[in-house]
Amino acid sequence: MTSKRWAFEDFVEGRSIDLGAKDVTAAEIIEFASEFDAQPMHLDEAAGKASLLGGLSASGWHTCAMFMRLMCDSFLLDSTSQGAPGVDHIKWKKPVIAGDRLTGRTTVVATRASKSRPTIGLVTLRSELFNQHGEAVFELENTVMFLKREAAA
Amino acid sequence: MTSKRWAFEDFVEGRSIDLGAKDVTAAEIIEFASEFDAQPMHLDEAAGKASLLGGLSASGWHTCAMFMRLMCDSFLLDSTSQGAPGVDHIKWKKPVIAGDRLTGRTTVVATRASKSRPTIGLVTLRSELFNQHGEAVFELENTVMFLKREAAA
Repeated sequence: MTSKRWAFEDFVEGRSIDLGAKDVTAAEIIEFASEFDAQPMHLDEAAGKASLLGGLSASGWHTCAMFMRLMCDSFLLDSTSQGAPGVDHIKWKKPVIAGDRLTGRTTVVATRASKSRPTIGLVTLRSELFNQHGEAVFELENTVMFLKREAAA
Repeated sequence: MTSKRWAFEDFVEGRSIDLGAKDVTAAEIIEFASEFDAQPMHLDEAAGKASLLGGLSASGWHTCAMFMRLMCDSFLLDSTSQGAPGVDHIKWKKPVIAGDRLTGRTTVVATRASKSRPTIGLVTLRSELFNQHGEAVFELENTVMFLKREAAA
């Protein structure tokens, strides 16, 4: 039996988990982009304003990374997660701009036991992030493997 | 007319682009995970070996970010890219372990003119990364917007 708060059995279809909040800074946007995605609209305020995105905007991959941190802090690090084999889809619905405050939620879409691994269950999650104007900026759906409570150390 | 090497017209169905190579270090794996994905298998050699992943392994989001950097350096920063609205799917097929050398390619799956924006074309790309053993570790498919050559500044 695990002492983790979240095991497979805790992910019930329809349950939503609050992901907390993240303030997005210009410095973080530029730091991430400099290392991984050095397109002008992610590095420079003026270039961002001139682009389709309308301002100094986070790399879509930076938004994914910030989303992962919110997942970690809100439940994943206190769970029996065994990782995920991939992502079903990502939608970058609106630009994430320096100064934005992101909030979000993850909702359990479906659960099923693994056929090949009796200790593991599969949880399909749909996650969304919103900005301070209430606009949905990000959507992701994927399936995560969690140990069943009795199987977890 | 743009001086960029890659505009919409250069993405021809079936064309493959070499993504170059990236050596994955333990320090980079730990640095990324500490900020965005602090699961034990991404922070600690022993925890990684004990996990399903079998070693100190990069966060899947770190692999996405390294992939984006390879895309930027091999063609995207010298293109008329206007960004992407999302990702159709990601597959993290094998762990990416400290010491791995990643190589990859991006292949043009389909192209079409935008119906709503006459200056833009849409290019669907399927990208793959391989490790030094020739194993596919990562696959991603998405659609990127590129300005047509005559429309680009």
